[in-house]
Amino acid sequence: MEQRVIDTLRDVFELNGFIGIETRAVEQGSSLLKKGETSKEIYLLSRLQEVGHESDTAVEQRLGLHFDLTVPLSRYVVEHSGQLPFPFKRWQIQKVWRGERPQEGRFREFVQADIDVVGEGTLPEHYEVELPLVMVNALERLREFGLPKATVHANNRKLSEGFYRGLGLTDIEGVLREIDKLDKIGADEVVRLLVNECAASEQQANACLELAQITASDGQSLIDRFNGLCEIHHIDMDGDAYAMAKEGLDTLTMIVDEAARIRPGSVIADLKIARGLDYYTGSVYETFLDGASSLGSICSGGRYDNLASQGSRKYPGVGLSIGLSRLVSYMLHSAGATASRISPACVLVAVWNEENRGESNEIARQLRARGIAADVAPTAAKLGKQIKYADKLGIPYVWFPNEDPADDGPDQVKNIISGEQTDADARSWEPDTVYARQTVETHA
Amino acid sequence: MEQRVIDTLRDVFELNGFIGIETRAVEQGSSLLKKGETSKEIYLLSRLQEVGHESDTAVEQRLGLHFDLTVPLSRYVVEHSGQLPFPFKRWQIQKVWRGERPQEGRFREFVQADIDVVGEGTLPEHYEVELPLVMVNALERLREFGLPKATVHANNRKLSEGFYRGLGLTDIEGVLREIDKLDKIGADEVVRLLVNECAASEQQANACLELAQITASDGQSLIDRFNGLCEIHHIDMDGDAYAMAKEGLDTLTMIVDEAARIRPGSVIADLKIARGLDYYTGSVYETFLDGASSLGSICSGGRYDNLASQGSRKYPGVGLSIGLSRLVSYMLHSAGATASRISPACVLVAVWNEENRGESNEIARQLRARGIAADVAPTAAKLGKQIKYADKLGIPYVWFPNEDPADDGPDQVKNIISGEQTDADARSWEPDTVYARQTVETHA
Repeated sequence: MEQRVIDTLRDVFELNGFIGIETRAVEQGSSLLKKGETSKEIYLLSRLQEVGHESDTAVEQRLGLHFDLTVPLSRYVVEHSGQLPFPFKRWQIQKVWRGERPQEGRFREFVQADIDVVGEGTLPEHYEVELPLVMVNALERLREFGLPKATVHANNRKLSEGFYRGLGLTDIEGVLREIDKLDKIGADEVVRLLVNECAASEQQANACLELAQITASDGQSLIDRFNGLCEIHHIDMDGDAYAMAKEGLDTLTMIVDEAARIRPGSVIADLKIARGLDYYTGSVYETFLDGASSLGSICSGGRYDNLASQGSRKYPGVGLSIGLSRLVSYMLHSAGATASRISPACVLVAVWNEENRGESNEIARQLRARGIAADVAPTAAKLGKQIKYADKLGIPYVWFPNEDPADDGPDQVKNIISGEQTDADARSWEPDTVYARQTVETHA
Repeated sequence: MEQRVIDTLRDVFELNGFIGIETRAVEQGSSLLKKGETSKEIYLLSRLQEVGHESDTAVEQRLGLHFDLTVPLSRYVVEHSGQLPFPFKRWQIQKVWRGERPQEGRFREFVQADIDVVGEGTLPEHYEVELPLVMVNALERLREFGLPKATVHANNRKLSEGFYRGLGLTDIEGVLREIDKLDKIGADEVVRLLVNECAASEQQANACLELAQITASDGQSLIDRFNGLCEIHHIDMDGDAYAMAKEGLDTLTMIVDEAARIRPGSVIADLKIARGLDYYTGSVYETFLDGASSLGSICSGGRYDNLASQGSRKYPGVGLSIGLSRLVSYMLHSAGATASRISPACVLVAVWNEENRGESNEIARQLRARGIAADVAPTAAKLGKQIKYADKLGIPYVWFPNEDPADDGPDQVKNIISGEQTDADARSWEPDTVYARQTVETHA
């Protein structure tokens, strides 16, 4: 199931020209500790022989498991900068580990699926438009596995920061942090925190809240509503703060208009999206599933101007990440997705007696050579028992080799779901399309 | 590259009806410590918050990374025994970790590809014939990536033990351990060790050595040579020891004869194959590549009667494991395998100016909808620069949208390898087959 989801994502990413990379799970502590945010959730490693002496080595010198795919990308880009083609578009689907106490719906070990585009020095803004659309495309493809419709909610850091600065606020990180709590703690509490923690006046705090309440699915209404709010709050439209906001507004406008043109309703502007992490510098994205708001954002990311740096050279990027294990878990439990059968085999070849197993093997080989997955009965048990084995594995066809080797008669194949039985030749027979491959079905 | 090798193995395993499973990388220390053999190479985990207090927890209670895929299979089978269809055929391709000091050609983190068949209570011996043939099939498929021909060397523990007991030896594990060193330390040293460490007489030791020198590619010559050796050394062919050896001989005969029938030369009997691990109870296998003996065995395994047990219920199995990372590393370095191009994209759509990027995006979308991987130029740079970008990524085609939107003329596409340029329509154009997909080429 998870494997088929991964195959689908890979297909979409490669169709879009992203290059697949795989990095080692084990990184240096010093790399892992660079970002403050998740540093408390790192698993460090120790060799069995070192038990009891772990503390002899500084944490930075120890090894640990990567907790996301961004830290490894950063290291990878710096290490391979000489050979990489920039802008470097990469996809990466791997396990990551968080050293946290496991809780409901959170996994200690889970799979993330990331796409990023990394530039050398500069990175055109059109990638901020295109990357969420690649993810929309990928999530659309997962609807065949029962995934509900996904909507990307986009905002832009420059827009928020320009607006806050236009109001006269200076603790931008603080304001973003409190606004990020809006859905959790409600408007009144956010206003209280903005006033108490971020030195905002009641009026400034309310203006921040009004900004967070703006949503729009087309560029013009976004511009109108944003400019309207600036006017109400007397933000100087010729000043530096508005100029900064305008940059973000332009990018966000491009995003929603392009999305509306290609896939109406797939991306909306939602100015309450803040993202906790402080390294985002432009667009930020979160993605929600219809009817699954309790799941939270299933695909998040944004633009960062400093994925990595080497001396004075900077590597800006834009990327999104799907929390794949949670998504698959949701699909299995809530969307009722299951594999159409346990075994990938389409045919079980029966065995009349152990002496003739070679003939059954030969039939299986002929089927496999033509791409038809085949298994051979484990023992020459009574036929009913062999059919029961196929049934338990969900294998739709049972193949009966011609019982009398002296007789030149045909083999027979039985569809044990429909009961239909016909003559068949392993060199030419084809299963009904619906039974040919193991697929994912949804029952919700 | 590694991904394409994995895809190929998966395809072979599923065609043969093996069920794919994925287990978590993190297991309980108590599970990991069950097998003595590799216990010294375990990586234990500690959460960052626990640093300095690791020793408060007993190793058995701590978490660690799996070092093979057999320990997880054992746990998995016991946990899911109620639902699994037995015999349970599973494939599993995952990373494993060894907490060893890294050295040349050895990886701290590497990928293994395993197939096993696990029975409940009993497991028919024909699986000991079939599993190495599935691996032979898989390794054959990898020859398109430059892998040399592989030969499975098979032996049987019962055959060896029966023969040793027939000679009057009792320290069977000891003898196997010394015989396993034959290629490394030579015959004289092995004889010396058998005499000094395993209480063998000079004559017994020489008999063990003579057994180890038998190889055969057909059953009859194997039987003749083995029985001849038994006669020379006066082993009682009516005794229990010979009866045990005969069981192993019968299975090994089946293996080489079936292999010779289907793929001559793919599996030979080689009676020096001992395998260090003490849990094998029947067939044992090692696999060597033509012209790459220094690489050692690339695919090993065997029959074990006790993968796991639950009360009095036992789960016998037979399995083989490919050390995939070492194999891929060999293919890249010695066989000269490389990807045909860096990017999976087949086409780079040029952009005349940023205002018309939407048209280039639309062309890329039409191509992708028909399964043709496409990228769009990062900037509306001079055409030469856009072509250079495609060249650097190895993208074979550059697509030129009709430059004048007012004019209804056709687009053009250029193969930048052959220089050929033609009119093209994104809704119908097809690339030459040889350029359609990113493939693996070999240059050795």
